[in-house]
Amino acid sequence: MATGHTDPQRRERILCAALDHIADEGVAGVSHRKVAARAGVPLGSMTYHFKGIDELLHEAFSRFADHVAALFELRLDAADSPERAREAVTDLIHELSGGPQRDLILTHELYTLAARRPEYRELTHRWMLRSRQLLERHFDAGTARQLDALIEGLALHRALDTAPHDRQLTREAVRRVTTTA
Amino acid sequence: MATGHTDPQRRERILCAALDHIADEGVAGVSHRKVAARAGVPLGSMTYHFKGIDELLHEAFSRFADHVAALFELRLDAADSPERAREAVTDLIHELSGGPQRDLILTHELYTLAARRPEYRELTHRWMLRSRQLLERHFDAGTARQLDALIEGLALHRALDTAPHDRQLTREAVRRVTTTA
Repeated sequence: MATGHTDPQRRERILCAALDHIADEGVAGVSHRKVAARAGVPLGSMTYHFKGIDELLHEAFSRFADHVAALFELRLDAADSPERAREAVTDLIHELSGGPQRDLILTHELYTLAARRPEYRELTHRWMLRSRQLLERHFDAGTARQLDALIEGLALHRALDTAPHDRQLTREAVRRVTTTA
Repeated sequence: MATGHTDPQRRERILCAALDHIADEGVAGVSHRKVAARAGVPLGSMTYHFKGIDELLHEAFSRFADHVAALFELRLDAADSPERAREAVTDLIHELSGGPQRDLILTHELYTLAARRPEYRELTHRWMLRSRQLLERHFDAGTARQLDALIEGLALHRALDTAPHDRQLTREAVRRVTTTA
């Protein structure tokens, strides 16, 4: 009997459906039933692949963090000098804040979840660690940490402002934070 | 007949109950019925004071933004030199990120709402404008804008990290961003 449990793509499909559902309706509305329907898999498949909603959310947001980290990596790996790294960071901030609304919504859904439930901060912690490590390829550890927070703040403010700041301001802020005494 | 419609405290009580409800269960679960029950007011009172859920959310989050802006103002007004203003900003970042979980949750609920529904960005825009204006009492406009984003990023990262950065790193980041060429 083909149960589909061994279908390697099924787990993947469930995670994508979970993220789509969160982007549309928020974390609060996630249920096994709704995600199964969206992924087009039988309900039993959900409990086979995930112990519960928390495991599903954890895995789905980890997948999303991988996607954003890949964006970071792509930009930062191409830079071969501190000056180019600064330019790459500027690009990244404008890409993150001007990109798909889905990514913006999912980021804030994750932050809200972590704000409400400290057990999800392991996820946000790992995510930040990862971007800092990528920045450390170009900057010292303290600078990388400051810069990571600046990227977050500038991207968030650009995305949620009706009159977002321009590239020149981003570039200047990045320059200042990466200038050591 | 005493309908309570003219009770000046009733509107206020509804807004507080709405924020409490959002902090506990999120924006998604807000309804006139639930907020009325929480505030201990008759359902008719809700429609008397607010045209709909959007007006209620708008007013409730404006009230919350006032509360956070007052915190900013209190800290920044006490500073009488750029050096003291930098110290006040450092205090503020640690206060925001180490403060009541309720404020952290409400902030992220608002950002998620604005990420999902652009019509709420007027609220986040006004909020940012206000903190920038307070920072402009001590710094030039460009610096104030960069600093405001840095405050956001550092406070967010501290609050959602399982190993938050120390005060020394905050102080150094603030120093760098406020140091003009």
